[in-house]
Amino acid sequence: MAYELWYWPGLPGRGEFVRLALEAAGQPYADKGCEAGAEALMQDLQGRSGIRPFAPPYLVDTDMADGGGTLVIGQVAHIVTYLAHKHDFAGDTFPLQLELTQLQLDITDMVAEVHATHHPLANALYYDDQKDAAARRAAEFRAERMPKFLDHFEEALSAAGGPFMTGAAWSHVDTSLFQLLEGLDYAFPQRMAALRGDYPALARMRAAVAALPGVAAYLASDRRQAFNEDGIFRHYPELDAAG
Amino acid sequence: MAYELWYWPGLPGRGEFVRLALEAAGQPYADKGCEAGAEALMQDLQGRSGIRPFAPPYLVDTDMADGGGTLVIGQVAHIVTYLAHKHDFAGDTFPLQLELTQLQLDITDMVAEVHATHHPLANALYYDDQKDAAARRAAEFRAERMPKFLDHFEEALSAAGGPFMTGAAWSHVDTSLFQLLEGLDYAFPQRMAALRGDYPALARMRAAVAALPGVAAYLASDRRQAFNEDGIFRHYPELDAAG
Repeated sequence: MAYELWYWPGLPGRGEFVRLALEAAGQPYADKGCEAGAEALMQDLQGRSGIRPFAPPYLVDTDMADGGGTLVIGQVAHIVTYLAHKHDFAGDTFPLQLELTQLQLDITDMVAEVHATHHPLANALYYDDQKDAAARRAAEFRAERMPKFLDHFEEALSAAGGPFMTGAAWSHVDTSLFQLLEGLDYAFPQRMAALRGDYPALARMRAAVAALPGVAAYLASDRRQAFNEDGIFRHYPELDAAG
Repeated sequence: MAYELWYWPGLPGRGEFVRLALEAAGQPYADKGCEAGAEALMQDLQGRSGIRPFAPPYLVDTDMADGGGTLVIGQVAHIVTYLAHKHDFAGDTFPLQLELTQLQLDITDMVAEVHATHHPLANALYYDDQKDAAARRAAEFRAERMPKFLDHFEEALSAAGGPFMTGAAWSHVDTSLFQLLEGLDYAFPQRMAALRGDYPALARMRAAVAALPGVAAYLASDRRQAFNEDGIFRHYPELDAAG
């Protein structure tokens, strides 16, 4: 098996963006963090040297395209872009590939802002110790940032003609946008219900991703983890509202 | 002139990472936002269509390497990586290039966390309207996150043998780390004074970047803008402390 994914067990989190890209591409992988546990994950990461990943998730590729041995790669946007270039779902021209990478980094930014809605003050504090700040941060996120990001993705998709960001062929941006929308639906169901009608191209893309054979099989499998209150996308009812 | 940089006038901000890469590479550019002003910048961005940048800075390259016309590219890490590949300061092997891109994204993450120290609750609010939350966020940043990120960069640099992240040749990671350290010194002078002795490889890299002919000329020019309280790196004395 060429790929080992290392990520925290027990939550979909940022690792899920990598899983979806691998599943959509039909690439088998060992889900090492889930298999070996959090302590083994930290030991593996700390045992690496040189330029190593700052944090999970990271991917170990034991079969690089040029036969050049083993590669360890961190940062979600970077991992899925690497996989996309290797397995041909990165766009078919150089300018388009650059545009897709740019969109992938926009997704990274929105994911970080989702995390900040429940952890605005400190990663090391529990949510319960920063609830008031979280309420303020989430209100701005719902009112200003969600429509701004979703408008941006909708506009880019609409220009492509659909259903995917490059048109007829799916790319790493589509699987990541799919997971972002799944997570937003889980975390902010009232707000997403109010916004849904504004984003027909996103809805079409999302259905098309769910229907990709690799994704459909994955979503129906026990490998797909449910969202919970340990990950990026958490449902705290007090942080959600229609407006 | 092949390059047009669009960024907010009046602050170094995220645009400065792009300027430093261009200056170090000896590539001339038109600093369009500074020349034309914020309103012209917003008009230019909103007038673009398709997959467009989410926010400034973005770079317009009117002379793509393959003669393929004009390219518009957003996201700081993506812009400087693009420039590095085009002008040969991206590392000389594929695995190293991937490692440098990964580090560049780690820098992006730390820059976002710096911004959150003065804007933890909402981008749209003034600092004065979120000072208490900022004090809590900054305390965690100084105590936990600064050493964690700086340890990470120091370890990567130490493995390279120095002075730069690839050894003898500078890369886009070095110019970005240089600017990150400049900004941290401005925003958190007490904390950085306390930490400085722990990071000899970062100090050596920083001096080596400052001595690059293109960077030295830039720093001595009137194009180099001073930090101020409008950008990413802001000096609010109440957010700084030795510990």
